[in-house]
Amino acid sequence: MTRIRFQRSLDDLKEKLLVMAGLAEQAIQRAIEAYRVRDLSICDLVNRSEVAINRMEREIDQAALDLLAMEQPMAIDLRFILAVIKINSDLERVGDAAKSISNRVRTMESMAQAELPVDIPRMASLAANMVRKSLQAFIDGDAEIAQSVLSMDDAVDAMNRAAHRTMTEVMANDSHLAPQALNALMVCRSLERVADHATNIAEDVIFWVKGADVRHKASIEAAAKTAAKLQQ
Amino acid sequence: MTRIRFQRSLDDLKEKLLVMAGLAEQAIQRAIEAYRVRDLSICDLVNRSEVAINRMEREIDQAALDLLAMEQPMAIDLRFILAVIKINSDLERVGDAAKSISNRVRTMESMAQAELPVDIPRMASLAANMVRKSLQAFIDGDAEIAQSVLSMDDAVDAMNRAAHRTMTEVMANDSHLAPQALNALMVCRSLERVADHATNIAEDVIFWVKGADVRHKASIEAAAKTAAKLQQ
Repeated sequence: MTRIRFQRSLDDLKEKLLVMAGLAEQAIQRAIEAYRVRDLSICDLVNRSEVAINRMEREIDQAALDLLAMEQPMAIDLRFILAVIKINSDLERVGDAAKSISNRVRTMESMAQAELPVDIPRMASLAANMVRKSLQAFIDGDAEIAQSVLSMDDAVDAMNRAAHRTMTEVMANDSHLAPQALNALMVCRSLERVADHATNIAEDVIFWVKGADVRHKASIEAAAKTAAKLQQ
Repeated sequence: MTRIRFQRSLDDLKEKLLVMAGLAEQAIQRAIEAYRVRDLSICDLVNRSEVAINRMEREIDQAALDLLAMEQPMAIDLRFILAVIKINSDLERVGDAAKSISNRVRTMESMAQAELPVDIPRMASLAANMVRKSLQAFIDGDAEIAQSVLSMDDAVDAMNRAAHRTMTEVMANDSHLAPQALNALMVCRSLERVADHATNIAEDVIFWVKGADVRHKASIEAAAKTAAKLQQ
């Protein structure tokens, strides 16, 4: 395989992962919409995308494996392929989180609607934003954007802890609201998982890009050494 | 690197992963013990092992990366190294689950002790058993043991759903027990995650071993072809 064809295969792999990311992001947005409007038909869509996401995960893993097997990639490409494998697995788990939320919506069907003091759409939009930003960091190979994702994680964690506190109070004060409060809490927990996966993705981008930096530095040092020898 | 030295490096990698697995398993067992006897000093141990687990994860990733970079591994070795990378990440998340449980124990300190209709030690022992078996499958490269782990996951899922049901009832009937019931539920949820990670590990073992089978089949076919040619 020529270098140009290898580069094209890497681009294909990146393209596939972005499709996977689009599916995962959509699954989360649909699951939250299903929760917001209590619509079981949206839950069906979420479950269908989970199947598609699982298929796509295997496809990407296989493509990455083929690239590793076909020739000995350079350090930077190797790190890229490994980052793809790891990000792939995190995106699949974002799909799982979407399915968990959609399962919660199904159990809500038999419950009375309740106004709960927890802003799930806001938490969802923060978590989805983290996924989007971590993928932006991946597309641009930008460690700085990736770093900003890591700091967003604290906000989501804080929201999850606050939800835990307020929902426990609701359960203690209005025991008939316990099932709804518990459901809301489980949805928050799933969103916190989504944020964790975005954090993992951001860390993988940093691992990949920092590897690039190190390699770049090494080649500058090697060039400097050669230059010094030539001057002797 | 000679084939023998490469093989030794693969064995070292396997050894490292087994140490990592031991740490993860111990962390879960300690976390459950901390929950059972409400002992915060055990929580400190869990948090300390989580740090060790995270360090070990990076070390194993680096060793796997070095092996991939050093020479072009054969298909079966490639699959093995990729399985190690994936199992490594699942073990790290088992450590996270242990830390989640230990955080729950900390919040329990301020709560009155309560007898709850949920058998957490039993669920914990099932989940820990799954981790152990998935690692046994990894050590022996045994797809059948791995398969048995996949069927155990249903039992843990069922226990988690049952816990969800009974704890919701407790919250609805005894609202002053809501915090304790919620804590128990969160611990069940973490154990269900541990079981999920064991399932992932088992799947990775199957991926690795089945790859070996396919390769084995291919080489038998190649040998048969050669034999047929020689007989012409």
